[in-house]
Amino acid sequence: MTDDKRDDFWCRDHKGRAFTYEEYMELVRDFHGFPAPGLMIGGPMVELARSSLGEGVLFDAVCETRSCLPDAVQLLTLCSLGNGWLRVMDSGRFALTLYDKASGAGVRVSLDPSRLEDYPAVKTWFFKLKPKKEQDDRALYGEIRKAGQALFKTRRVKVAPEFLTKHKLGAVAICPGCGEPYPSKHGGSCLHCQGEAYYKE
Amino acid sequence: MTDDKRDDFWCRDHKGRAFTYEEYMELVRDFHGFPAPGLMIGGPMVELARSSLGEGVLFDAVCETRSCLPDAVQLLTLCSLGNGWLRVMDSGRFALTLYDKASGAGVRVSLDPSRLEDYPAVKTWFFKLKPKKEQDDRALYGEIRKAGQALFKTRRVKVAPEFLTKHKLGAVAICPGCGEPYPSKHGGSCLHCQGEAYYKE
Repeated sequence: MTDDKRDDFWCRDHKGRAFTYEEYMELVRDFHGFPAPGLMIGGPMVELARSSLGEGVLFDAVCETRSCLPDAVQLLTLCSLGNGWLRVMDSGRFALTLYDKASGAGVRVSLDPSRLEDYPAVKTWFFKLKPKKEQDDRALYGEIRKAGQALFKTRRVKVAPEFLTKHKLGAVAICPGCGEPYPSKHGGSCLHCQGEAYYKE
Repeated sequence: MTDDKRDDFWCRDHKGRAFTYEEYMELVRDFHGFPAPGLMIGGPMVELARSSLGEGVLFDAVCETRSCLPDAVQLLTLCSLGNGWLRVMDSGRFALTLYDKASGAGVRVSLDPSRLEDYPAVKTWFFKLKPKKEQDDRALYGEIRKAGQALFKTRRVKVAPEFLTKHKLGAVAICPGCGEPYPSKHGGSCLHCQGEAYYKE
């Protein structure tokens, strides 16, 4: 019996290390600060996507929301923001796709709203049917744990060709405005000096 | 003597765990897949930013590049893509800012090109003066290790007020196109069904 056939199996990481619900919750706390419901259900969601894609596929990932879910991908796969193997296409849908980085053939896993009928506390949280402080956290986490992969549907998809090429920085120049290196493809000065400043000194 | 006064101290994480260069390299391999130079120098860079900001400040983070550096922030602080405490403002400059999430007062740390004169292999890598396969990796990693925090300059900054508020998803509706939940603020259907599709089924 392999680790992921155990009754208390929740998900595993890119090295094949299996986690129980509690072990994954600890991993989440350490990386994300708190066990956000969206990140807790992200565990079995990534697991479902990876097992549906099949063993041995070298994959990249797309998350369709910026909230919580990208961290499940970063914790459980080698796809990260910094290595560019994880991208966010923020339609705000609770979905992710893992796809073969050579062919673009992949599996999209998304939250299926019809499945939420059996999980009323998850439904209340997800659709914000009550203010957060009136929600029953104990019932919510209990249902998340009970549901596991049952909240999701999977579809075979093919991602667009531009997702098969890596983002390249290209040539580097020194900005005449700030004196710092920047990608010369951005123009005669860096985007900060062109007006996209998020701070002042 | 605290951990970060040791000769072989490289950086530490949000729990105060100190890492040597080799230990941090292992952490990087496990999360990012390989010890990218930009992520290796990101360790002392985050360390410098945090120590300059001072102890006890509850901070958020901005990275000015999508390449490598965001993973240093995610590995060494509690700011992540999924919890929204890390944002990317992609000007392509090798810089990051940690700032007080209440006041916006922060420290920006950036690679100082003038410092690279003492580190020719780092300069060659950063400015792409030679094709990657002609670069001397041994010299590069040796110089990275020798340089530590010496590659960077720090500036006190104040981030714009919109960086002090959290991104909110708002109300959730069911898209009439795909039948999936989406943020109703996006319009009458989800962005995917409005044409921003990255895949086909």
